[in-house]
Amino acid sequence: MDASPTSSSAQTETRGDTATTSSWPRGAGNHPAASTLEGLNAWWRAANYLSVGQIYLLDNPLLREPLRPEHIKPRLLGHWGTTPGLNFIYAHLNRVIRERSLQTIYIAGPGHGGPGMVANAYLDGTYSEVYNSIDHSEDGLRSLFRQFSFPGGIPSHVAPETPGSIHEGGELGYSLSHAYGAAFDNPDLLVAAVVGDGEAETGPLATSWHGNKFLDPLHDGVVLPILHLNGYKIANPTVLARMPEKELLSLMRGYGHTPYLVSGGFDGEDPIDVHRRFAIVLDDVLDHVAQIKADAAAGVLRTRPAWPMIILRTPKGWTCPHEIDGHPAENNWRSHQVPLRDARDTEAHTELLQSWLLSYRPEELFDQKGAVAEWVTALAPEGELRMSANPVANGGLLRKELRLPDFRDYAVDVPSPGATVSEATRVLGGWLRDVITANPENFRIFGPDETASNRLDAVFEVTDKQWNAESLPMDADNHLSRTGRVVEMLSEHQCQGWLEGYLLTGRHGVLNSYEAFIHIVDSMFNQHAKWLKTSRSIPWRRPISSLNYLLSSHVWRQDHNGLSHQDPGFIDHVVNKKADVVRVYLPFDANTLLSTYDHCLRSRDYVNVVVAGKQPAPNWLGMDAAIEHCTRGLGIFDWAGSEYAGEEPDVVLAAAGDVPTLEVLAAASILRQRLPSLKVRVVNVVDLMRLQTDGEHPHGLGDREYDAIFTTDRPVIFAYHGYPWLIHRLTYRRHGHDQLHVRGYIEEGTTTTPFDMVMMNDLDRFHLVMDVIDHVPGLGPREAVLRQEMQDSRVRARAYTRLHGEDAPEIRNWEWHEPEPAASGEALDEERSKGTRR
Amino acid sequence: MDASPTSSSAQTETRGDTATTSSWPRGAGNHPAASTLEGLNAWWRAANYLSVGQIYLLDNPLLREPLRPEHIKPRLLGHWGTTPGLNFIYAHLNRVIRERSLQTIYIAGPGHGGPGMVANAYLDGTYSEVYNSIDHSEDGLRSLFRQFSFPGGIPSHVAPETPGSIHEGGELGYSLSHAYGAAFDNPDLLVAAVVGDGEAETGPLATSWHGNKFLDPLHDGVVLPILHLNGYKIANPTVLARMPEKELLSLMRGYGHTPYLVSGGFDGEDPIDVHRRFAIVLDDVLDHVAQIKADAAAGVLRTRPAWPMIILRTPKGWTCPHEIDGHPAENNWRSHQVPLRDARDTEAHTELLQSWLLSYRPEELFDQKGAVAEWVTALAPEGELRMSANPVANGGLLRKELRLPDFRDYAVDVPSPGATVSEATRVLGGWLRDVITANPENFRIFGPDETASNRLDAVFEVTDKQWNAESLPMDADNHLSRTGRVVEMLSEHQCQGWLEGYLLTGRHGVLNSYEAFIHIVDSMFNQHAKWLKTSRSIPWRRPISSLNYLLSSHVWRQDHNGLSHQDPGFIDHVVNKKADVVRVYLPFDANTLLSTYDHCLRSRDYVNVVVAGKQPAPNWLGMDAAIEHCTRGLGIFDWAGSEYAGEEPDVVLAAAGDVPTLEVLAAASILRQRLPSLKVRVVNVVDLMRLQTDGEHPHGLGDREYDAIFTTDRPVIFAYHGYPWLIHRLTYRRHGHDQLHVRGYIEEGTTTTPFDMVMMNDLDRFHLVMDVIDHVPGLGPREAVLRQEMQDSRVRARAYTRLHGEDAPEIRNWEWHEPEPAASGEALDEERSKGTRR
Repeated sequence: MDASPTSSSAQTETRGDTATTSSWPRGAGNHPAASTLEGLNAWWRAANYLSVGQIYLLDNPLLREPLRPEHIKPRLLGHWGTTPGLNFIYAHLNRVIRERSLQTIYIAGPGHGGPGMVANAYLDGTYSEVYNSIDHSEDGLRSLFRQFSFPGGIPSHVAPETPGSIHEGGELGYSLSHAYGAAFDNPDLLVAAVVGDGEAETGPLATSWHGNKFLDPLHDGVVLPILHLNGYKIANPTVLARMPEKELLSLMRGYGHTPYLVSGGFDGEDPIDVHRRFAIVLDDVLDHVAQIKADAAAGVLRTRPAWPMIILRTPKGWTCPHEIDGHPAENNWRSHQVPLRDARDTEAHTELLQSWLLSYRPEELFDQKGAVAEWVTALAPEGELRMSANPVANGGLLRKELRLPDFRDYAVDVPSPGATVSEATRVLGGWLRDVITANPENFRIFGPDETASNRLDAVFEVTDKQWNAESLPMDADNHLSRTGRVVEMLSEHQCQGWLEGYLLTGRHGVLNSYEAFIHIVDSMFNQHAKWLKTSRSIPWRRPISSLNYLLSSHVWRQDHNGLSHQDPGFIDHVVNKKADVVRVYLPFDANTLLSTYDHCLRSRDYVNVVVAGKQPAPNWLGMDAAIEHCTRGLGIFDWAGSEYAGEEPDVVLAAAGDVPTLEVLAAASILRQRLPSLKVRVVNVVDLMRLQTDGEHPHGLGDREYDAIFTTDRPVIFAYHGYPWLIHRLTYRRHGHDQLHVRGYIEEGTTTTPFDMVMMNDLDRFHLVMDVIDHVPGLGPREAVLRQEMQDSRVRARAYTRLHGEDAPEIRNWEWHEPEPAASGEALDEERSKGTRR
Repeated sequence: MDASPTSSSAQTETRGDTATTSSWPRGAGNHPAASTLEGLNAWWRAANYLSVGQIYLLDNPLLREPLRPEHIKPRLLGHWGTTPGLNFIYAHLNRVIRERSLQTIYIAGPGHGGPGMVANAYLDGTYSEVYNSIDHSEDGLRSLFRQFSFPGGIPSHVAPETPGSIHEGGELGYSLSHAYGAAFDNPDLLVAAVVGDGEAETGPLATSWHGNKFLDPLHDGVVLPILHLNGYKIANPTVLARMPEKELLSLMRGYGHTPYLVSGGFDGEDPIDVHRRFAIVLDDVLDHVAQIKADAAAGVLRTRPAWPMIILRTPKGWTCPHEIDGHPAENNWRSHQVPLRDARDTEAHTELLQSWLLSYRPEELFDQKGAVAEWVTALAPEGELRMSANPVANGGLLRKELRLPDFRDYAVDVPSPGATVSEATRVLGGWLRDVITANPENFRIFGPDETASNRLDAVFEVTDKQWNAESLPMDADNHLSRTGRVVEMLSEHQCQGWLEGYLLTGRHGVLNSYEAFIHIVDSMFNQHAKWLKTSRSIPWRRPISSLNYLLSSHVWRQDHNGLSHQDPGFIDHVVNKKADVVRVYLPFDANTLLSTYDHCLRSRDYVNVVVAGKQPAPNWLGMDAAIEHCTRGLGIFDWAGSEYAGEEPDVVLAAAGDVPTLEVLAAASILRQRLPSLKVRVVNVVDLMRLQTDGEHPHGLGDREYDAIFTTDRPVIFAYHGYPWLIHRLTYRRHGHDQLHVRGYIEEGTTTTPFDMVMMNDLDRFHLVMDVIDHVPGLGPREAVLRQEMQDSRVRARAYTRLHGEDAPEIRNWEWHEPEPAASGEALDEERSKGTRR
C-alpha cells in the first residue's frame, strides 16, 4: 500500500523549478524545421490518398491512367469525414515518437475511422507485415483498396483486423475509458486518445474525462486526450463544437485538464501552417507531460496534476472537394460518409474524384513500382515504436499468466451438506486478496462502488482503492490511495471500459457489480464479445485474458431495493453471442464459487459471467466435491435425493443458482419426509452452457450424458435463478423437454423478505413440492393432502411476513438434515414396496 | 418554424436593463424573515422525523412512550443518507412556490430517497388524499411507518407509488434527462432536479447537463439543477465532491450554467443559518430565472442563457447521530443505508435511536391526535401547486389524444404485390410530418442524429431540429432552430430519458434509432417497463402514452457498417418484461409500417418496439390488405403460396421482418416454379406477440387459430429478423413446434452486400428452398437436383459479390411475379395429379 496521502488542496500546477529524476523522455526543445513540416504533410497526403483510394477504387490505384468508371467500386461504402483529422494526428504522433522514443498507442475514438487507421498502418509497414499479400507495390495497393468495405474484405471501421487498435470504431463513447484502462500499470506508455466531437456527446464519454481522478502519475501511464472538433455528426453540428470557446475551455478545466487549443484548415488555409502550429503545441504538451512525470518521480507532486489535453479544430472531410453539386462538402456534415456518391455513374463526379485524388500529388508519394516513397515513410518510428506495431495494442503478446494461489486453501469446511454457513463472495474475497498480493502489477478489480458491498473487502487488507481526487482526514480508514488494485467509480460504463482497456493490453481483471445494473453495459458487452469473436480468427492477434464478471446483489436478495433492482436478464443477453466466446456460471456456495473463479481467471478470450450470492447461506459441498461438481459443470446430488442407484427416478428436481438450490433442497427434504416412496433425483447446474448440446456450445453435454442425468421421460422441475425461458431455450433440443417445468424469476413486484420473494415467483419449496405432485403421474389421495398442506404453508408463510416484516422462524432457521437412516437403503425399499402408487 | 437565428457569440449574460413582458412569476425581493426560517426548519424536522420513523418504527410512532425493541422493525431496510438533503430542498421549494405561485415538480435524482419523498407528500396532505387509510392521525402515522420497505408495503425508493414522482430512484443517472423531457413544451413549469453526487458520476448524467443546449427559454419550461454534494456514495467519496471548488465551478460553467453555491450543516452548524443562506440563494436563482424568462418573452434573448444551477453541499445523513460505535455516521458514507443497524437488538442503539428521533422535537410537530401541526403544514402550497399533487407528475391526467391524420391517405400504391418499391420509413415520415402539424405542442421525435439517416426527413418540411447551441450561416439548410419538434443528440441515453420525461408528463413521442445501438438503453427500458407495470396497479396513476421505438438501420442492412452495427437482440431483451407492457412489431413494407405506427401512437402504457427498413424495398400489400394483415397481426399470403384452399399444405414458409419476407417470397417463387406440385403456404407475422399463446400474452393467438395457420404437423420454415431462438421461445407451447425450423441472425461477420449478408446467415432464398427440401418428407430425385442447384446458386452468388463488390444482377433486380395462370387453379391441379410424390 502506498501510504502517502493525497492532499485536499486545489488544482496543481506543474513545477518547473524541480529537478527531474524521471526517465520519461523529453523533446529537444527546437521548433520543427520546414523540412519536418514537409515530411509531416507528405505523410498526411499519403494517408489521405490511401484513405480515399480505399473508399473508391477497385483499380488504377496510382492513377497512372485517367480514372474511368470501371476503376471505381460499384457500391461506395465507408466514411471520409473524420479520416483526414485522424491521419493528421497520426502523422504528428509519429514525429514525436521518433524524437522522444515514446511508447505510444493510438485510440481512434471517432466512428468510422477505418480507412485512415488502415492507411497509416500501411504507411509504417505494419500492415504488410501482418497481411503479406498487401505489400508495398501497385498490386499491394490494389488489394489494399479493393478489400476495404468489400465482401470478404475488411470492415469500414477501426476493428480487430486493424493493427495497432484496441478500440472498435463502431459504437461510440468508450475511447477515454479504454485509454485509461490501457494506461493503468503501464508507467512508460503514452495513450493518445482521439475523442470525436460526436462521441463526446455520449454519456459514457462525458463521464470518462474524470478518469484523471484515478490515474497515478507515477505508476500509471499517460492519457493524452485529443478532442477533435470537426464540427459535425451524421447530419447535425456537434454540441461541443458549438459551445463558446470560453465554455469549452472551462469545461475541460472543470474536468481537471489543461487545455491546449489548435484550430486550422479553414477557408483554404495552407496545411503547412496548421502542421507548424500543431507540432509546436504537441511539443509543449509533451514537455508538460514530461514535467508532470518528472515531478511524480521526484516525489514532489502532492496533488493531482491538471494533465494537458488538446482541442484540435479542423474541417470535417478536410481536403475533399469544397463543394459538390452546389452543396458544401468539406467542413460540412455532408462529408460524413462518401462525399461523391455518383463517382462511378456521372462523368462530373468521376472527374471530381480524380482531381481530388490527384490533389494529394501521388506521383511524389509513390515510387515507380508503387511503393511508398522513402522520404514519406521516413517519418515512421522504428519497429515496435510504430503505433500500429506496438505490442501493447496486441495485448496477448505481453500477457503473463496470473500466479494463482491454490484456491483449495481457502475452502470453507463443510462437514456435511448445509452444516456451515458462509457469505460466498466474502470467501472469494480472501482468495482475491492473495491473487492481488501475488500479482501486484497486472491484476485489478473494477466496480461501481460495490466491492465492499459485494463483500470482497478482504482485498483491502493488502491493497487500496486507487483514488487521486481529493482526500480528507476522515478517509483514513477508507482504503483510498494514489495506488491500489481496486478502482471504483459509480459508472458501470467506466468500469467496463477500463477493464476492457486493461485486458486488451495484456492484463487480467474482474468487474464486480449488481446483477440488475450490469444491463447498463449490455451494448459494451456486445462490442467486446464481437471483438473477441473476430480476434479469434486473426492469426496475429494473440489471446487475451477473459473478461470476468462477478454479479452479486442478485435478483433474489433485493430486500433493501425491490423491483427496480431485480433483473437477471444479462445472462439472456449474453447467450445471444457466439458460443465460442461466452460462459455463464451459477456457483451456489462458497467452495463452488472459489472453484469457478479459479477457472475463470485462468481462461482466455471468453466473457465469463458469474452470478453469486453475498448473503449468509449454507455451504453444500466440501472442496473436493465442489471441484468435481464444477469440473463436470452439473451433476446429481445423490446425498439429497431419494432414488436408488441404477434406477430411474420418478421425478428430477433441478436447480441453478444459490437461492434455487436452497429451495430445491428444502423441497427434496419435504418430499423425502412426506412421500418417502417417491424416487426424487436432485440435480444441480453450475455451468449453464452444459445444458446445451455439444453441437451448440463447446461446453454442451452429449445427449447420452444429458439423458443419464435428466432422464428422457421423467418430469423435471427446474428451479432457475433467472427468467425461466432461458432454460427452455438451452434444453430445446433435448429429449423429454416437454416434461421440463421451469420456475424462475418473473417480473412481479417488490417485497423485502427472502422467502416472500421466492413465493412471489413460485420458486419456493412449497410450490416446488406442488409442482412435483402435479407432474408425477399416478399420484393418489395421500399426495393430494400434502399438496393442500403446501398451499396452506404458503399462505401461513406469507401472512407471517405481512404481520412481522420478516420470514417465519421455521423458514428463516430451516436447516438441511442428513436423511434418517430409516429413510434410505433397505428401510426405504421396504417403504416403497408398501407404496400404493405403482 | 421559428426563423430567428441563434447567434454564434459567446456566453450570454442576463440582461437586467430590459423591461419584462413575461408572466413568469417573480419574488417579492425580501429576505426571508426569522419566522419563515423557523417554518422551513419545522417542515424539515417533520420530514426528517417521518423519514426516520419509516425506516425504523413498527409502532409508537409519536414516541409518546419510551422506545422499546418491539416498536422497531425486525428487518431494518431503506436508506437514510440522502434523505435529509432531499427534505431540506423540498421545504425550500415549498416556500418559493407559495410566494411565487410557481408550477413546480420535483425530481429526486439521488438513489434511495424514498422515505423523504413519501414524508413530504404526507406533510403536504397529498399522501392521505391518494391513500385514504394513511391519514393524519396516530394510526395513520403507524401505517405510514409500517408499510415502508415492508412485505406488501411500498418500496424504499421513490417509485410510481410515490405521489409527485416521475422518476424512480433505483438505477441512477437520468434525473436531468427526465427533467428536460418534462420541461419541453411546458413553458410555465419549473422542474427542480436534484442531482446526487453519486448519480453525477454516471455517464448518462454527465452528458445530460448539455440539455440546456436544446431548451428554448420561451416555449419550454425551466430546469433548475440542484447538485447535491453530500460527499459519499455507498462506501466511497464521490468524484464531484472531491474536486477543488474552482474546478467544480469551472465544470458547471463549462456545461453552460451559472453556478450558485451553498454549503452548510458541517461541524454542528445551526440549521437555521443554512436555511437562511439557501433561501436567499434560491430567491436569487429564481429571480435570475425570471429575468431570463422575461428577456425571452421580450425577444431580447439572442443567445442561449447561462441558466442558474445550485450546488448544495451538506453532510451525508445530516442530523443522524454523529458517531455510532466509535465510527463517524453523520457526514460519512456509513450513513448511506440504516445507520443504527442494531436498534432493536442492543439497548444502546435503541436509546440512540430514541434520542435521534426526539432531536426533531416531535411534540412540537404533531398535535394531540397525531396530526401534523398546522404551523408546520402552513408551508405547503395550495392544491395542485403542491409538488406531490402537481398533475404534471401524473401525466395521464393531462394527456390529450393525438389528432392523427388518416394514415390511409399516405398509402403507397400497390397494384400487385411487389409492383412498386418504397423506402418504408420515408413513407412513414410523410405521415409523421402531418402528425406534427396537427399536434404542434405535444408530440416530439427524439433521436441520436439519425432522423434524416432513417429517412424521416419529410418532417423537416414543417418543423426543425430544436437547437439552442451556436448556429452558423452554413446551417441555413440544416433545419436547426430554437424551436422544433425533433430533438437530436448523439446520446441514446438522453433521447430515451427526454422521451420518458415527455411521456410521463402527459405528452406523446417517438424515439428513432439504429437497431443495434438501442441496447445502449437496455437498462433504461427495464426501468421504464417496470414503472409502467407498477403504475397499472396504482388507481390514481392515469395511463400515459406508450413509448414508441422506431428502429431502423437494422441488422440486415449494415452495408456501410458491418458486424459492430448488427444486433437484433433488443427484441429478446424486451420480451423478458411483463407481457402487459411490451409489444413488438415487424412491419415489412410501407403500408404495414403506416398501419402499425398509427396503432402505436394511439396506444397507452405500452412499450412498442417497431423495427422497419429504410432501404428501397418492394411493397407487398395495398393499404386495405395491410390494415387487415396488421389487425390480425399475422396471416397467410394466399397470393404467394401454392396451396389449395381447404387443404393442408406440405410446408409452411413463414417470415417476420422485411428482409426475411423478401427472401421467403423469393423462395416461394422458386418452389412454385420448380416444384409446382408442392403445396407451400406462405405466412407472415407482423405482431410478434401473436406467436405466444393467449395465456402468455394479451396479443397471443388461441391455439385453434394458430394451428389453422401453421398446421399442427407440417414443417414450418421460419425466416426471422432476429436471433432465431426467440421464435422457438414464443412458439414453445404450440402444437408441432418440433417441426419448426428457424433461420435468423447469427453472430457471423462483416459483409457489405445485402444478399451476401443473408447468405452468411443461411436466411437466403436458396437456403430456404433447401430447408424445405430437407424437411418435407418423402421428396425424391427431382428435389435432390433442385437442392444441388440451390447450393450452386449460393456459390455463384457469393463468388459474384467477391468479384464485383455488389450482388449479382439476378439477385439485385429480382422481382416478384404473379403466378402464371397455368401454375394455379385447374392447371396446377393437373400438374399435381401428375406429381410423383404422393
